[in-house]
Amino acid sequence: MFNSFGNILRLTSFGESHGKGIGGVIDGFPAGITIDMDFIQKELDRRRPGQSALTTPRKEADKVEFLSGIFEGKSTGCPIGFIVWNENQHSGDYDNMKDVYRPSHADYTYKTKYGIRDHRGGGRSSARETISRVVAGALAKLALRQLGIRITAYTSQVGPIRLEENYTAYNLELTETNPVRCPDPEKAKEMEQLIAEVKAEGDTIGGVITCVIIGCPVGLGQPVFGKLQAALASGMLSINAAKAFEYGDGFKGLKMKGSEQNDVFYNNAGRITTHTNHSGGIQGGISNGQDIYFRVAFKPVATVLMEQHTVNIDGVDTTLKARGRHDPCVLPRAVPIVEAMAALTILDFYLIDRTTQL
Amino acid sequence: MFNSFGNILRLTSFGESHGKGIGGVIDGFPAGITIDMDFIQKELDRRRPGQSALTTPRKEADKVEFLSGIFEGKSTGCPIGFIVWNENQHSGDYDNMKDVYRPSHADYTYKTKYGIRDHRGGGRSSARETISRVVAGALAKLALRQLGIRITAYTSQVGPIRLEENYTAYNLELTETNPVRCPDPEKAKEMEQLIAEVKAEGDTIGGVITCVIIGCPVGLGQPVFGKLQAALASGMLSINAAKAFEYGDGFKGLKMKGSEQNDVFYNNAGRITTHTNHSGGIQGGISNGQDIYFRVAFKPVATVLMEQHTVNIDGVDTTLKARGRHDPCVLPRAVPIVEAMAALTILDFYLIDRTTQL
Amino acid sequence: MFNSFGNILRLTSFGESHGKGIGGVIDGFPAGITIDMDFIQKELDRRRPGQSALTTPRKEADKVEFLSGIFEGKSTGCPIGFIVWNENQHSGDYDNMKDVYRPSHADYTYKTKYGIRDHRGGGRSSARETISRVVAGALAKLALRQLGIRITAYTSQVGPIRLEENYTAYNLELTETNPVRCPDPEKAKEMEQLIAEVKAEGDTIGGVITCVIIGCPVGLGQPVFGKLQAALASGMLSINAAKAFEYGDGFKGLKMKGSEQNDVFYNNAGRITTHTNHSGGIQGGISNGQDIYFRVAFKPVATVLMEQHTVNIDGVDTTLKARGRHDPCVLPRAVPIVEAMAALTILDFYLIDRTTQL
Amino acid sequence: MFNSFGNILRLTSFGESHGKGIGGVIDGFPAGITIDMDFIQKELDRRRPGQSALTTPRKEADKVEFLSGIFEGKSTGCPIGFIVWNENQHSGDYDNMKDVYRPSHADYTYKTKYGIRDHRGGGRSSARETISRVVAGALAKLALRQLGIRITAYTSQVGPIRLEENYTAYNLELTETNPVRCPDPEKAKEMEQLIAEVKAEGDTIGGVITCVIIGCPVGLGQPVFGKLQAALASGMLSINAAKAFEYGDGFKGLKMKGSEQNDVFYNNAGRITTHTNHSGGIQGGISNGQDIYFRVAFKPVATVLMEQHTVNIDGVDTTLKARGRHDPCVLPRAVPIVEAMAALTILDFYLIDRTTQL
Repeated sequence: MFNSFGNILRLTSFGESHGKGIGGVIDGFPAGITIDMDFIQKELDRRRPGQSALTTPRKEADKVEFLSGIFEGKSTGCPIGFIVWNENQHSGDYDNMKDVYRPSHADYTYKTKYGIRDHRGGGRSSARETISRVVAGALAKLALRQLGIRITAYTSQVGPIRLEENYTAYNLELTETNPVRCPDPEKAKEMEQLIAEVKAEGDTIGGVITCVIIGCPVGLGQPVFGKLQAALASGMLSINAAKAFEYGDGFKGLKMKGSEQNDVFYNNAGRITTHTNHSGGIQGGISNGQDIYFRVAFKPVATVLMEQHTVNIDGVDTTLKARGRHDPCVLPRAVPIVEAMAALTILDFYLIDRTTQL
Repeated sequence: MFNSFGNILRLTSFGESHGKGIGGVIDGFPAGITIDMDFIQKELDRRRPGQSALTTPRKEADKVEFLSGIFEGKSTGCPIGFIVWNENQHSGDYDNMKDVYRPSHADYTYKTKYGIRDHRGGGRSSARETISRVVAGALAKLALRQLGIRITAYTSQVGPIRLEENYTAYNLELTETNPVRCPDPEKAKEMEQLIAEVKAEGDTIGGVITCVIIGCPVGLGQPVFGKLQAALASGMLSINAAKAFEYGDGFKGLKMKGSEQNDVFYNNAGRITTHTNHSGGIQGGISNGQDIYFRVAFKPVATVLMEQHTVNIDGVDTTLKARGRHDPCVLPRAVPIVEAMAALTILDFYLIDRTTQL
Repeated sequence: MFNSFGNILRLTSFGESHGKGIGGVIDGFPAGITIDMDFIQKELDRRRPGQSALTTPRKEADKVEFLSGIFEGKSTGCPIGFIVWNENQHSGDYDNMKDVYRPSHADYTYKTKYGIRDHRGGGRSSARETISRVVAGALAKLALRQLGIRITAYTSQVGPIRLEENYTAYNLELTETNPVRCPDPEKAKEMEQLIAEVKAEGDTIGGVITCVIIGCPVGLGQPVFGKLQAALASGMLSINAAKAFEYGDGFKGLKMKGSEQNDVFYNNAGRITTHTNHSGGIQGGISNGQDIYFRVAFKPVATVLMEQHTVNIDGVDTTLKARGRHDPCVLPRAVPIVEAMAALTILDFYLIDRTTQL
Repeated sequence: MFNSFGNILRLTSFGESHGKGIGGVIDGFPAGITIDMDFIQKELDRRRPGQSALTTPRKEADKVEFLSGIFEGKSTGCPIGFIVWNENQHSGDYDNMKDVYRPSHADYTYKTKYGIRDHRGGGRSSARETISRVVAGALAKLALRQLGIRITAYTSQVGPIRLEENYTAYNLELTETNPVRCPDPEKAKEMEQLIAEVKAEGDTIGGVITCVIIGCPVGLGQPVFGKLQAALASGMLSINAAKAFEYGDGFKGLKMKGSEQNDVFYNNAGRITTHTNHSGGIQGGISNGQDIYFRVAFKPVATVLMEQHTVNIDGVDTTLKARGRHDPCVLPRAVPIVEAMAALTILDFYLIDRTTQL
């Protein structure tokens, strides 16, 4: 049950980095949605390695093959199976890691838990697993588009370089105009520069992705354990390297008092709305019709191209130096993954909300 | 399904602030555990209103009545039903809120979603709902105690006043020696002072709770969507007023590079361990045997004793001034709630982990 | 998770025969439904012991107390907690069973599985647990009534005495006019007579309940594992003493060939329908708009007032003779239970069906 | 969620008859199990069309390709993705069914529910979907074999020809020695003869499969809604064409009184056991260590090679005559499917049972 995400709309994923491929099954996807293959592939391309000098030079086409659930270009309501075949793997790059636990990777915990592990490229713990999320998320976006709901994420921090303003201060259309996916062109340049420096050192760096959901109706979210923010947090923290989640004012709001942070209602030409949006579009776990926004922190990639101390599978102290082709910074490629998890969550809760009244 | 939390161990809760009571059903609780009623009541007392000058002066005994699943002092493996009867409600305090949406509360979203709402004391959206979590969490703690797993939370920030060090710098035994539940007696005094000031203004203030889980075996957590941090984040963000979750280095780690943040393994007298614990005890979604720690931010309570602008249920602009007895700061009473959600999550994953190998 | 039934609409139940009471939580019940308390109590009265000479002479009022989720007479969309307090228990009747395993009861399996058991009245394995189903089912019926869906069950067989015709041959309005709940007054008399005889011997007898669902729209049921018949079968086989389930032609249909059993479609004044209904209203796991009907077999109650050989908890051969007040035949009281499980299933699938298309 | 089966061990399936293939994901499969590919293929061969004169002459190799979750011949605990590619489809055979609803098929209900349907070969509603069950079931059997649990099914009735005795009267080793999979060679001949006759008429015939589970420990099954029989019934009724389920004495037991049907315990050389097994190895929803046995009735295949009346998608009366290659009797090929669903259920409950006590 733990390789599945969602309730009514549910993605079940499978696949390892150096196995045959990464795939999944999307169950509960609404029938009758036109499947725009170009759009789906574009989403995969945003996640694809080798798309810019900032990312791993691995070349993977990452073309998705749908296996079921689509007939004459439309979803049928039946489960949508899909796979992205692996290719261009250099499994040999991992030979020296077979018997060694890489620091801050999942090698040790997987081995201890399962008694067995596919060491090649991290196996199931590889970030390559997120391909299945992007495919499913792209489908969810197609449905949300029909509902007028739009999801946009961007890189808002890399290491110490950060956008100081809230998302409303930026033109989010600019996000895709630079390889870091930052809507502030100046900051984007700085971030790019920093990533290049870190890469040259064989080191890695983390950052923050901000995500905005626009056009959500009032009513999505299910009290009390299915609060919208709880589902979003769960989805985000399930992404490799994610370390933190905050929505609305988040940690920043701690500087304010209740009287300052409350979002006061008013009647805006017949529609109830709020002057401010400290709540991040969610009140009592339910969307209130304002923009939903949240931030996700990603740690630096654990694979550094430097010698590190560690132990081998027999518990003997040793050293390890990673070979292979790795990302110095996961942020740019994680933007579509964050959007995908948000899209899956919102569509799921949209469908569920229909069951609220008879 | 959304008033339930957990997988094998599952709490289903019910109840409203001014209804008959708050209760729940705990399913999947292991058989044969001795039920220490004093301990459970003590946990409830830590959450109880009126326990100090810092909290709402409402006086509620909050005695739990168990309804099933316990026989001759032990759990039977059958579902444990329970209820804490409501008493001392002043429903009249809420009469003026019947037709008005309180800012940053769930009134508007509930009404829009459900078409009906119990306005008295927030109904289901009241933080009184967390009683069921504390009862279930106390039971989980009893089981975890047998396994040598201990969960401790404390207030690490109130408004701008914060503990600067990580949890290892404090004597956590001191947490319960002051009403804010802060293990640093000096800071505790400052926090207490601040809360008193804010209260005098009729205002409210937020803060951060830090939680530490000690003694967890290697192997808890289920890739990929059931990562331990994802489950913890979901549990924490389902608590009223929670706005953010971070584990390990969280946001702070963004200042570091991968080479600095990696937790290097070494053999410590026959046991594989790490020198540092930036990972927060979880790698690849699975506990690695180190302490698990995380932080949860809580916004200021939305109910302020000041006049605020808002709209009524007909969408007409109006003002509202809360009456009644409210907490100026939710933090001290939220400490056992955070612990409870952590305990439920850890015991659930402990049980699930048993199914990993034949 | 196993004391819960349903998906979007979910009953979680708790309670033992000789504990404080039997209760539950109904989650996902649609908001805004008027709660007709008289109707709910009438349903409980149909299940109640002591309602006729055919049932156990135990006198239990079985009054339900709702604990949450209802406000000013209507459902709020929040979980509906409820309890029926136990009373009139003669726990002493079970003293001689404390250390002995009753044949064909759950004593031995519970003890072995859980290591502990509440022996009084069967504890959790008592059919008294079905009270929670009847309460939840009554609520579901209230919602279904608004949708024009009606569920009716009746006793169609007791021991060898059986109704030979399909449900369409009987006036189901007569079901409640006799204590066996059989719509054929002649057969009802025979059944009554047989039960009286069996009771006089201290023995017990089984039978069959037939259930009909009228007014179901086309489209309820979820391929492939959520087929409507699979959900109904699961619900029915979860009732104590149920041994078999068949829908449509069931076992009887084996005498026919495909050409005879197929339900041929035709256009009936603009509505697609079928001449026959061998399918029992379900095709491909989905309701087809015809009446849904199925049959559930119940074995004789295991408690006989005769001396039986058995073993005690130390594995020593012994004998046992039940004392206490028991039903000679479970059928009459099981009729509302079968209806309740059907009602829960149909309402759940009705709600789920709304998520099929955008 | 409805294309998934199981709790901890969960199969999610996808695929249509004339799409790319039939596949699935098996989540929660225990790590470290040696994957015997030959065994899995043999199970698929037992389900394969064209295996004898009794089945459809379609030739499909039905070779399974595993996509993940297996490393160096062993399960890793990660989800096991797989696919059986479709081939040899004659989609043209279904052209005349594109706009017509086949009687007693899922065409009409799918179209009405989803607004769209893949008409080729029944699409998702095709029995070809059961391939995924056989693959997953074969894996489950490999794990159960290690635990000494064995599952065997056989054809016990075809039309009116039936085995009169309980399973203990037959040598189940003979089941696979004839194409109908009946352990009584005489009856097998008669059944074969009958199927040949029915086939010659272009008609179809149903029957019963009996399944026996040997070696099950005491304790599998989860009260109250997760009773072992309820899970088995749900699994069986989710198979295409299944119409009825009974376990233990089932309908036959109605002839007996409680005193006759009770399974009396005795001490058999230190082990508690029962003289008889009317209960079918399950008491109170929990396995009692005796053989578990149940029977599943299958209706005649709906596709008959005769002209039938029906309506088209515009609701106009018309006639239809099936072309193509179809099974006259589903029973022989359904035997491994019944076993597969039983194996998945038993292994799931075996794993769950481990969480009962600490």
